[in-house]
Amino acid sequence: MSEIEARFAALEARIAGLEDQLAIYQLIATYGPSVDSRTGSVTTSLWAEDGVYDFGRDPLVGAEKVGSLVNIEPHIHYVADGCAHVLSMPYVTVDGDTAVATGYSRVYLNQGDHWRVERASANRWELVRTPEGWRVRNRINRLLNGQPEARELLSNGVKGKA
Amino acid sequence: MSEIEARFAALEARIAGLEDQLAIYQLIATYGPSVDSRTGSVTTSLWAEDGVYDFGRDPLVGAEKVGSLVNIEPHIHYVADGCAHVLSMPYVTVDGDTAVATGYSRVYLNQGDHWRVERASANRWELVRTPEGWRVRNRINRLLNGQPEARELLSNGVKGKA
Amino acid sequence: MSEIEARFAALEARIAGLEDQLAIYQLIATYGPSVDSRTGSVTTSLWAEDGVYDFGRDPLVGAEKVGSLVNIEPHIHYVADGCAHVLSMPYVTVDGDTAVATGYSRVYLNQGDHWRVERASANRWELVRTPEGWRVRNRINRLLNGQPEARELLSNGVKGKA
Repeated sequence: MSEIEARFAALEARIAGLEDQLAIYQLIATYGPSVDSRTGSVTTSLWAEDGVYDFGRDPLVGAEKVGSLVNIEPHIHYVADGCAHVLSMPYVTVDGDTAVATGYSRVYLNQGDHWRVERASANRWELVRTPEGWRVRNRINRLLNGQPEARELLSNGVKGKA
Repeated sequence: MSEIEARFAALEARIAGLEDQLAIYQLIATYGPSVDSRTGSVTTSLWAEDGVYDFGRDPLVGAEKVGSLVNIEPHIHYVADGCAHVLSMPYVTVDGDTAVATGYSRVYLNQGDHWRVERASANRWELVRTPEGWRVRNRINRLLNGQPEARELLSNGVKGKA
Repeated sequence: MSEIEARFAALEARIAGLEDQLAIYQLIATYGPSVDSRTGSVTTSLWAEDGVYDFGRDPLVGAEKVGSLVNIEPHIHYVADGCAHVLSMPYVTVDGDTAVATGYSRVYLNQGDHWRVERASANRWELVRTPEGWRVRNRINRLLNGQPEARELLSNGVKGKA
């Protein structure tokens, strides 16, 4: 490989790393708007075809199933009353064609003149690179209500930093 | 165009795309600190000269007018009591010299020993590239209180994903 | 310097700027998961060895001291009950080997069937580039309870924008 080719390859690798991180931000930033508007087709599009959403009991298996969560209770009533599913800026680690993003979600629910924080959860997004871009292989969501699983999820996501 | 020139051009385009997305993050991340400190000149600087802030009634037209919102009620009292206007990491689409960022805002208001979620809104930021950088052409903000307009705003922002 | 060398250098500088901003996002996104899981070693790893955490009284001095905050009250009880320390997407300015990130933190505390916003604060992260990456030299955190110091912190962080 020529010297110039090596310079290009080095820059391309750095750019690709930045693109991965921002593409994962974009994916996660799409989730809330898709569910709060009950646009299930967009929710579905974020998951790999056989991807999973595990929120602590009976995980939803398959992208179609995940997207259909916008059509079940209590979600229908949350949206009718007014709700916001807000995802925090996550910590992201990319390893080849897989990635993990660790962060928080909160559900704000309208109560007339204010909003109640109905849920605050730890989130682990296990992602896979596909020909169409990054997709969710498994999203694991645990309420931060004192359960050890939620703490382990957060700790596992960032422990490589130390 | 030589092969080397084509390689440079391709990398420059990818870098420019990343720069756009991060510049839009920076713009949106400036809004809250500017209004919560009543630094209206900074709020003004985020808008295009003829830009609009549409929050559901009597839109503010013109950057100066938008910046002056820090000097009206109930904003003055919110800041005196202690408030936080927090914008979520948005979903961003750039199309040449215009862009749209879709996300959430929340206003937290101090109540003595805790904060109340006074507002939770859907936000659409319509942006324009200017010689001085990205500026707001129109920010549309709708309370997530069950009104269909808030849901449409969120759905419109992300539907290109599906 | 040849023309080609100059082109490479220009792209490298732009990429380095983007890498800095994203690395600072990553650092800040690590804080919450580290403290909400009481993984003090990771909290410690975010600070420069002599770094400071100033939250309004008796600042914690030294990375080890900062990390030890996960082992004091009221933090221990917050985590046992379930809490989320969520940092907003900050406004970042990089100046050579130092940087400042300005944004918000909120602490959500579980109350059984909902979460209470226990704290909402203005944050200034003063960062330094080290051989191991960006580290915190000083994090200044002021509750948004009407105190002028919190407003000044926010205003100082974004005033270069105007």
